[in-house]
Amino acid sequence: MRLVNGQPTDHLNLTDRTIQFGDGVFRTLQVQDGRVPFWSRHHAKLAADCAALGIACPSEEVLLADLHRLGVENAVVKIIVSRGESARGYAVPADILPTRMVLAAPLPAYPSALRDEGVVIRVCDTCASWQPALAGIKHLNRLENVLARREWSDPAIFEGLLLDRDGLVVEGVFSNVLILRGGQVLTPTLAASGVAGVMRGIVMELFAEKGYTVIPSDFLLAELLEAEQVWLCNSLFGLLPVRMLGERNWQILPLNGALQQTLADRCCQESLSLR
Amino acid sequence: MRLVNGQPTDHLNLTDRTIQFGDGVFRTLQVQDGRVPFWSRHHAKLAADCAALGIACPSEEVLLADLHRLGVENAVVKIIVSRGESARGYAVPADILPTRMVLAAPLPAYPSALRDEGVVIRVCDTCASWQPALAGIKHLNRLENVLARREWSDPAIFEGLLLDRDGLVVEGVFSNVLILRGGQVLTPTLAASGVAGVMRGIVMELFAEKGYTVIPSDFLLAELLEAEQVWLCNSLFGLLPVRMLGERNWQILPLNGALQQTLADRCCQESLSLR
Repeated sequence: MRLVNGQPTDHLNLTDRTIQFGDGVFRTLQVQDGRVPFWSRHHAKLAADCAALGIACPSEEVLLADLHRLGVENAVVKIIVSRGESARGYAVPADILPTRMVLAAPLPAYPSALRDEGVVIRVCDTCASWQPALAGIKHLNRLENVLARREWSDPAIFEGLLLDRDGLVVEGVFSNVLILRGGQVLTPTLAASGVAGVMRGIVMELFAEKGYTVIPSDFLLAELLEAEQVWLCNSLFGLLPVRMLGERNWQILPLNGALQQTLADRCCQESLSLR
Repeated sequence: MRLVNGQPTDHLNLTDRTIQFGDGVFRTLQVQDGRVPFWSRHHAKLAADCAALGIACPSEEVLLADLHRLGVENAVVKIIVSRGESARGYAVPADILPTRMVLAAPLPAYPSALRDEGVVIRVCDTCASWQPALAGIKHLNRLENVLARREWSDPAIFEGLLLDRDGLVVEGVFSNVLILRGGQVLTPTLAASGVAGVMRGIVMELFAEKGYTVIPSDFLLAELLEAEQVWLCNSLFGLLPVRMLGERNWQILPLNGALQQTLADRCCQESLSLR
């Protein structure tokens, strides 16, 4: 089921600027048993990303009406907000109206073993771009993620890390990264590259609640390899520890289990019912 | 008139990866009196850009059939090649088929005074991103061009320059840049940013034929300001000298007139008739 500006359709006008330029932003979120975890945070991030690019963001009411119309109980929902339609050329007409797309897809299965035993990751050859004007924003210019994801086909590899031009860790292809090191939790600043996901913010709060100092701070791959634990997070799989990267193996710390429980609780508490 | 995979339509499937990720490349070219200037070069560049991203490029025959079907005598034609349609997620299915879009728009008017007297340009605050994996390719991730173009609305300003993180000149929002300095012609290398346009290659040849040494070489804005002449080029307006940037004014050199004549001749010689 797919909606464009609230109407069921499988098509988009060819004059839409997402097709021409990737001129828009998006959100990927879950619907679980008719509830949307962290809905308010997702809308706040969508609004912030739209504001950063000068795109008019649909209101919470409008998007919730779309989610109701979509009528899914369990699904991945992708919300895309385009700057709108325009004639040829980069210039934006003054009266442009945003296009909103709401698309449902099946929920992928993430076995609980991934949360308990961790995942295997690799380092991508594709670098994260340097572009402070777009850093942090979940925009539709995602070619570097596509290229990075094309680097491996081994299903045993869960995720690939992107480094920036200086060798600093930025993110995974579809996740954010946090490391525990010397009793502190570090996560890349995303000041010049990458996407600052909603789950990253939630997980930073969880660590802080457990008494850890959480610092947005850039680190090299070598520093990640020396970490006591590495985690990935996104809005679909939540939080996953890393058990292997190349020759480096990690034991999964008891802290991971405590975080998983707290995240599951938070997910229930902070979800919105669509019923 | 618009075609998707050869069929007249105004719509694209929502599962197309141009919408999701900007996962494709494009060409903007002219049809003038039923002829396409530099067609072979445009197709060669489209094929090279597709190859760089691992996208299957439609053959010259297929695209020429589309251009015939389009049936335009005078138009701007945009050819978009998408990696194709896929389910949610960055991973690319092995059996994916490219989507080709061929879109016609009215030819914009470029008064001959622009070629003879030059244009006024500015410097954008938006920087060009650093991303060697995408540099040179005319791909669909064009948000930075959109943001740069939003910086000015004064119609007296023809174009804006993008600098990279080190202050080196990369390109204009919709054009390439060449400068004449100390008897040499320099144009940015585009090794880590920007688009290497078809007209850039043609203009480099023209300068070489006139006896100038043409060097792909990066230069700072200060060096551009010291140039004897600055030109912009793209496939729609051809070659335009710059007459003003901020406080700096340039006299248009006689060389410009000679280049314009040679380019007009070349454009006739190297064009393909659609009739």
